[in-house]
Amino acid sequence: MNFNDWTRSVQARTEAALEARLPSADIEPTRLHDAMRYTTLGGGKRVRPLLVHAAGLLTGATPEALDAAGAAIEMIHVYSLVHDDMPAMDDDSMRRGKPTVHVQYDEATALLVGDALQSQAFVALSDAPLPAVRKAALLRELAYASGAAGMAGGQAIDLASVGVALDRVSLEKMHRMKTGALLRAAVFMGALCGSEAPESLDAATLAASVQQSQQQAGGAAIAEAVDARTFATALERYAAAIGLAFQVVDDILDVTADSATLGKTAGKDEAANKPTYVSLLGLDEARKLAKQLQADAHAALVPFGDRAERLAQLADFVVERAN
Amino acid sequence: MNFNDWTRSVQARTEAALEARLPSADIEPTRLHDAMRYTTLGGGKRVRPLLVHAAGLLTGATPEALDAAGAAIEMIHVYSLVHDDMPAMDDDSMRRGKPTVHVQYDEATALLVGDALQSQAFVALSDAPLPAVRKAALLRELAYASGAAGMAGGQAIDLASVGVALDRVSLEKMHRMKTGALLRAAVFMGALCGSEAPESLDAATLAASVQQSQQQAGGAAIAEAVDARTFATALERYAAAIGLAFQVVDDILDVTADSATLGKTAGKDEAANKPTYVSLLGLDEARKLAKQLQADAHAALVPFGDRAERLAQLADFVVERAN
Repeated sequence: MNFNDWTRSVQARTEAALEARLPSADIEPTRLHDAMRYTTLGGGKRVRPLLVHAAGLLTGATPEALDAAGAAIEMIHVYSLVHDDMPAMDDDSMRRGKPTVHVQYDEATALLVGDALQSQAFVALSDAPLPAVRKAALLRELAYASGAAGMAGGQAIDLASVGVALDRVSLEKMHRMKTGALLRAAVFMGALCGSEAPESLDAATLAASVQQSQQQAGGAAIAEAVDARTFATALERYAAAIGLAFQVVDDILDVTADSATLGKTAGKDEAANKPTYVSLLGLDEARKLAKQLQADAHAALVPFGDRAERLAQLADFVVERAN
Repeated sequence: MNFNDWTRSVQARTEAALEARLPSADIEPTRLHDAMRYTTLGGGKRVRPLLVHAAGLLTGATPEALDAAGAAIEMIHVYSLVHDDMPAMDDDSMRRGKPTVHVQYDEATALLVGDALQSQAFVALSDAPLPAVRKAALLRELAYASGAAGMAGGQAIDLASVGVALDRVSLEKMHRMKTGALLRAAVFMGALCGSEAPESLDAATLAASVQQSQQQAGGAAIAEAVDARTFATALERYAAAIGLAFQVVDDILDVTADSATLGKTAGKDEAANKPTYVSLLGLDEARKLAKQLQADAHAALVPFGDRAERLAQLADFVVERAN
């Protein structure tokens, strides 16, 4: 299957997976349920579910488990967009080519839609067709990536940075949290869905496991622990590269694409006087950085061989997309 | 230990457990972290953590596991208060005797504080000192109770009911979701923390397990499956009684107590023309209902014997509290 067909098939699976996991608009509270479906279904590139499915190919994950993990992470992403668009935050009226939730419904509904989508993401993990040990590993990745140490924390730094001359290190930290953490979680969650993955991909746990096997166990256990750590390190490098590339390209598109192509208001970072990679580096250097990160993502995947084909193609997709 | 001393000791443990699980106000984003700590620490009756610890006594749970579950559920409760107080919802300026988060900080911070506290609750479950199978069971309880089928859904129904003449059945459904679901989750999560608890307390799972043991297994397995179901049914009855009692008493206090005693604005349901048990039944009948529910909670606990002493005392506390 070529990449475009694969992308469309995962997007279709994801739409069905989300549809099945959102409460019906026929039952009370209907306005909440209707708004949850309005904002979640029928749009978006589904980049995070694509990463989940691509990473699952590394470890023999079932498509059904990946659907659950992909739906969960997409719900977190969508909730963050709903809250980010509210008047107290970015005050945006258009998203994915449609009026935002607080415009189409009202502010209280937008607040509750975001809150309920976050819970629903964890419901989706809870119901995933996976053993408890895998659910616990997914819970860890998703909860950390969503909260103060990840996406929500990154949004708070972003909020505090309007009109402030952030340097490149601070800008990178903000984006690593705001968008990078969830993209990284998508890669790790996809890999963790497969029975061939180590039970944990947490760096501290893996380092402890290498140390323990060196002290107490034989050669095979050491090799396994080292393999697990090598696996996690390669994934980490890939995720860091595409996470940053995603943001650099977002910043480039904010100044080069029009609102209709983007499905959201173009040029709004500049209007809000927000620091971006383009304002910091200039357009040409930002484009060079995106290309470097793309190459680094490919280099990170070398140890995985052919099984990483979709992850490699997604790195290209992230950098070469038009919206 | 008498009940008051036990209550104070659990409240102190809960404060320490929350303190340890909230991000430090010394690290970026400091304003977000500071606001998370401001709204979570140093206040509240900690009813949900008290229920967690009391229910854990039924199944031999460790205090450390109960601290994690109690902190998680309290974070969900606190996040809901922060969002509920925002201008788009109840627009309240006082909570637990202090200015609300959007007043003390700003609306964007209040939005992110609630979002990050919800994630942090799931981080707390993820880090709980419990086997994966227990974490998965806790995840299920907390996620369902928080979302569209529970607390957030109840808030949406509440929002839609302002100025509407809800009948008693609709009012009860709303409260069963808005406050009852999380109180029920506290009881179930506490019980699930103990190694003597069944691996699942989910009604459908337990019914299937009884049926399966009858078809395939011997007498001991049937007895165990039936025991698990009896256990879950008794907990369910207790939780339903105290959940409803909690709301009836809240409605009574809203008209009989002053704002200083409540730590929040008194009389606001009446001012907002919200349906309450007092407006529906009158004050005397509402008080009788609370007493009936208290008796039903006690009756539900009979099968547990002495181990349910704290749960019984908490039923009294919920009904007889002054704020």
